[in-house]
Amino acid sequence: MSQPTGAVAPSDQRLAKGARSRASIARHAADVASVEGLNGVTIGRLATDLGISKSGIATLFGSKESLQLAAVKAGREVFIAQIITPSLAEPRGLPRVRGLVDRWFVHVTEPAFPGGCFRTAALTEFDSKPGPVRDALAADHDAWLTFLAQEIGKAQQDGALPTADPELLAFELDAVITAANTARQLGEDAKIAMARRIADRLLSA
Amino acid sequence: MSQPTGAVAPSDQRLAKGARSRASIARHAADVASVEGLNGVTIGRLATDLGISKSGIATLFGSKESLQLAAVKAGREVFIAQIITPSLAEPRGLPRVRGLVDRWFVHVTEPAFPGGCFRTAALTEFDSKPGPVRDALAADHDAWLTFLAQEIGKAQQDGALPTADPELLAFELDAVITAANTARQLGEDAKIAMARRIADRLLSA
Repeated sequence: MSQPTGAVAPSDQRLAKGARSRASIARHAADVASVEGLNGVTIGRLATDLGISKSGIATLFGSKESLQLAAVKAGREVFIAQIITPSLAEPRGLPRVRGLVDRWFVHVTEPAFPGGCFRTAALTEFDSKPGPVRDALAADHDAWLTFLAQEIGKAQQDGALPTADPELLAFELDAVITAANTARQLGEDAKIAMARRIADRLLSA
Repeated sequence: MSQPTGAVAPSDQRLAKGARSRASIARHAADVASVEGLNGVTIGRLATDLGISKSGIATLFGSKESLQLAAVKAGREVFIAQIITPSLAEPRGLPRVRGLVDRWFVHVTEPAFPGGCFRTAALTEFDSKPGPVRDALAADHDAWLTFLAQEIGKAQQDGALPTADPELLAFELDAVITAANTARQLGEDAKIAMARRIADRLLSA
């Protein structure tokens, strides 16, 4: 799929270079999507932004939908690297939940994407458009809330949080931090502070 | 502005007809925006959907941005008619707050727009795009949260809700019901039930 037409047998080096190009184009697609929406991610726009040919991008991705799916994967990888991976070195239970929530707030208030949280922008854009892109976004969202609920459940087993439905608390944190993301993009700092107070209250015993 | 070029002096009847056309086109624009985003609202798309000429729509609205602003106004009018206006007949304080929240849930679970809550879709789409459309959406959102916080404040004065920052509770309800809207569009009914439980908890003394 990444083999250029008319090329000689691909070397490992060329495959590696193609994978790097693909990843960096997908990452830029996620940046564009955070501001313009995933429907603003076009092969022409990316070619102009990155100074590469449209045919080069078309060869790597094939279709707009495949490019959108690659942007979703790139957005997910940033979230995992920034928020989830560091938590694996933290003590399980409440310290890990607090670490996840702290980094999630940083992800929202000092966003890696120019338009704020990629997931929030893309999920709201696609929630009424059935298809593979919506499915990928919903699966990413579910995986995150499931992971968070598992960690909340461990904190509850430790007695560090009141016994309650861990999925409900994960949903509530997601709602509040998603609202903080919108507030941040609108420059409403007082609401970010409110979201932080609510999250602190939800995570106190 | 709504006077057709080359027309005779407009009669009251013609002005009234123009206003009705403008309102019904703006209402359809809000429907389209709830699914496709406000950037999916084009004069060409509306002309095709409504079976009227592009030049007729262009005469009534002038520009895409003016059409988007009219869609925002139409979305706001639906929200006010469905949720706020009925509350003026309700007793002030907690009964009115509960009525507002109940109708807000209906607005989200049985939406007037094909893509769910117009405000949620449009605000997330435009929160990273400074300009008149974002300003209009932010003003609409602020006006709603201010009204809700005032009513929460009255319920607190009555002793029907614990004394706390009314703006914080309005923000929290907004976050949770906005998340319920996304859940509804994704077909995740369990999350709508979670949102309802959270709202009930927040509105109990």
